[in-house]
Amino acid sequence: MPIEYTDPDEVFEALLGAQRAQPKVVEVDVADAFDRVLAEEVKSPIDVPAFNSSHLDGYALRSVDTLNATPQHPVVLTIRGSIELGVKPPKIVQTGEAYRVRTGSYLPEGCDAVVGKEEVYVEGDRVYVTKPVKAGSEVVKKGSDVAKDMVVLRSGHKLRAQDLGMLRLLRYTKVKVYAEPVVAVASIGSELTESVEEAELGKTLNTHAYTITALIKSAGGKPLYLGIVPDDPQAIKDTILKGLAKSSLLLTIGGSSVGEADLVSKTLQTLTPTMHKHGLKLHPGRVAGCCVVNGKAVIILPGLIQSTVNAFVYLALPLIKKLSGQETTRYEATVRARLAEDLVFHRFPDFKKMTWVSLRKKDNELVAHPIRGDSPMLNVLVKADGYILTEPNRMVVRKDTDVDVALVPGLSSLP
Amino acid sequence: MPIEYTDPDEVFEALLGAQRAQPKVVEVDVADAFDRVLAEEVKSPIDVPAFNSSHLDGYALRSVDTLNATPQHPVVLTIRGSIELGVKPPKIVQTGEAYRVRTGSYLPEGCDAVVGKEEVYVEGDRVYVTKPVKAGSEVVKKGSDVAKDMVVLRSGHKLRAQDLGMLRLLRYTKVKVYAEPVVAVASIGSELTESVEEAELGKTLNTHAYTITALIKSAGGKPLYLGIVPDDPQAIKDTILKGLAKSSLLLTIGGSSVGEADLVSKTLQTLTPTMHKHGLKLHPGRVAGCCVVNGKAVIILPGLIQSTVNAFVYLALPLIKKLSGQETTRYEATVRARLAEDLVFHRFPDFKKMTWVSLRKKDNELVAHPIRGDSPMLNVLVKADGYILTEPNRMVVRKDTDVDVALVPGLSSLP
Repeated sequence: MPIEYTDPDEVFEALLGAQRAQPKVVEVDVADAFDRVLAEEVKSPIDVPAFNSSHLDGYALRSVDTLNATPQHPVVLTIRGSIELGVKPPKIVQTGEAYRVRTGSYLPEGCDAVVGKEEVYVEGDRVYVTKPVKAGSEVVKKGSDVAKDMVVLRSGHKLRAQDLGMLRLLRYTKVKVYAEPVVAVASIGSELTESVEEAELGKTLNTHAYTITALIKSAGGKPLYLGIVPDDPQAIKDTILKGLAKSSLLLTIGGSSVGEADLVSKTLQTLTPTMHKHGLKLHPGRVAGCCVVNGKAVIILPGLIQSTVNAFVYLALPLIKKLSGQETTRYEATVRARLAEDLVFHRFPDFKKMTWVSLRKKDNELVAHPIRGDSPMLNVLVKADGYILTEPNRMVVRKDTDVDVALVPGLSSLP
Repeated sequence: MPIEYTDPDEVFEALLGAQRAQPKVVEVDVADAFDRVLAEEVKSPIDVPAFNSSHLDGYALRSVDTLNATPQHPVVLTIRGSIELGVKPPKIVQTGEAYRVRTGSYLPEGCDAVVGKEEVYVEGDRVYVTKPVKAGSEVVKKGSDVAKDMVVLRSGHKLRAQDLGMLRLLRYTKVKVYAEPVVAVASIGSELTESVEEAELGKTLNTHAYTITALIKSAGGKPLYLGIVPDDPQAIKDTILKGLAKSSLLLTIGGSSVGEADLVSKTLQTLTPTMHKHGLKLHPGRVAGCCVVNGKAVIILPGLIQSTVNAFVYLALPLIKKLSGQETTRYEATVRARLAEDLVFHRFPDFKKMTWVSLRKKDNELVAHPIRGDSPMLNVLVKADGYILTEPNRMVVRKDTDVDVALVPGLSSLP
């Protein structure tokens, strides 16, 4: 029975439309919110700063008092006291007066300027100003950092270091974030082992689950590893149902090649999926598939590592992002690079092709070097920094073409 | 007493030369090694694959047997059996024979080619080959993914998802990584509070420690927060000595402006530092400083948030990277972008200037938008994706200039 291949974006859209899992919201302490996805709009309840304040250590004064100041005829103001940090403006500055202020001190009422302490000289409680101070000089205006009611962060934003400071600045102690969706992973194959000793005797060491669980974490999910499942329909069925009960999404690795061992796809048919698709117009990765069982997505990742990762990037990564409240993209960002050599495809004309590349800097320019190697080769991915996607029916991309290199969280790095 | 400003790179080099803390090596399970820094060279102990193996489901044969095959006169080979996955090549293929193989099956001796099962037809134990199969066809060569003794990963490399798979593939169960250096953080200032209630009454909420501890984690360090310390020399001294005893590096935040509150720098003098520097030719960030006490670095971060972060990026980030076994850089990477508007500097001609920018994509190009706002403004950093460094004595960078935007771990994101 020949496999029917479908455009991978179409397959993903169908999967997204058919699955019913939704992101969940939890509340965490701001101190624990780093790298979590914000689940609320952050609107400032306050002005920051709360009052006009000083930009430096110096003297708060009324600019109008200094209009006629010159080095020969300095204006002399009386220092009425100091305003410490963290004290609400308690004083009113009158004509001829000044207050000693520190960087960040709130300014007394009536004051519209600050002069730095290096700019003046002081004798006892008198400060001598030798040139006019402009209105607004060295004053940080109330609300100039963040104005009351301003939207500072949006829902779906991944919280960075400075965002935690901002949440705290706006008086948040806790913040709503999306829960990390649990993503179950089962490695399928009687040939697999977790034991180095058994691998020495010829079995295949289970390596893919290590890569996939790390990719799940980087995507914003919480991996739940279900272990190795032999090539047995009942065992596969049991594992899938057990895994789905505890997760928002399940990934199988291996057992999906179109042949004797194509057990996963056949077994899934018996679970009356509401959506089922096997075969993507994606190379490498064409024997991947997915279905929806009990309202939850099951994604069938092929066993050859590049196909495993490509199918993960195409089907699993955007779904994990969606279930963790983020935008449904397959990458972190794309960077523009110059292609170092011709890319020539000989097969699968109407497929999308993913080519893994390493990125290097040359004369301030990024250069993308395609990495040669068949889809079972893990070293291709170890050398890779990102991938180029070539659209169907484009069989040649010439050297020196500007290409977009997609970066995958947990897998990519930039030079 | 006027402060003397020094080039920040010179200060960092002096600090690096004077401090004595060193990265430490620990061993962790491969499963726990994601995002850790490798502390050994990974050289392959084996060939991968261990033997020639099949690239697809099909039949292993001797290419020489198929030389005269045509659709009219197919060559008929006898299927001697199946070779399952994970079984060492036990068989020898003889003239006129073939073995059924799966993707990844090791090939029997004497076999030099595989033909896919879609390419042939089969009757009982006979396979009909209708065209010559080229030597090497669909064979994955022994060692073609990773050859024995090949250096696959180097010490200092941050382990990504695919690297964990590779370690496992090469039979590693544990791996040597660098310990995350403990980085102590003390917030200095009698005006500070951790309590929102006290902040409502005028005190300053301690926000910077939230940002700095997240930046420490992203840099590869383990933050140890020592709390708020009042503006009191003895309290500062006690905290620094206590913190240094438990860490590889200590950061103070605030209390460093050149004025009445310049307590940290003065207090550090009393601890007989072997190196001491206060004042960087860096704007914002000029009142930062550092010293070495008991062989360990103490870095004085200024209290205005942009200066805090700039000084962190300049002095603390590369040192944390160094102490965690990584390259000593201030950034993750730099990306090339077009400057959206003129950058004009009016002060500090002989200083380096850090300008925070947001990055946007326009017509496949990255555009860097400088973010306006004084150094106390946190919102500048919340809007930022990276920074531009302008060299001393360059007071204008024109719109449309190509600039390098540096990305900071934990702070930056790419569009």
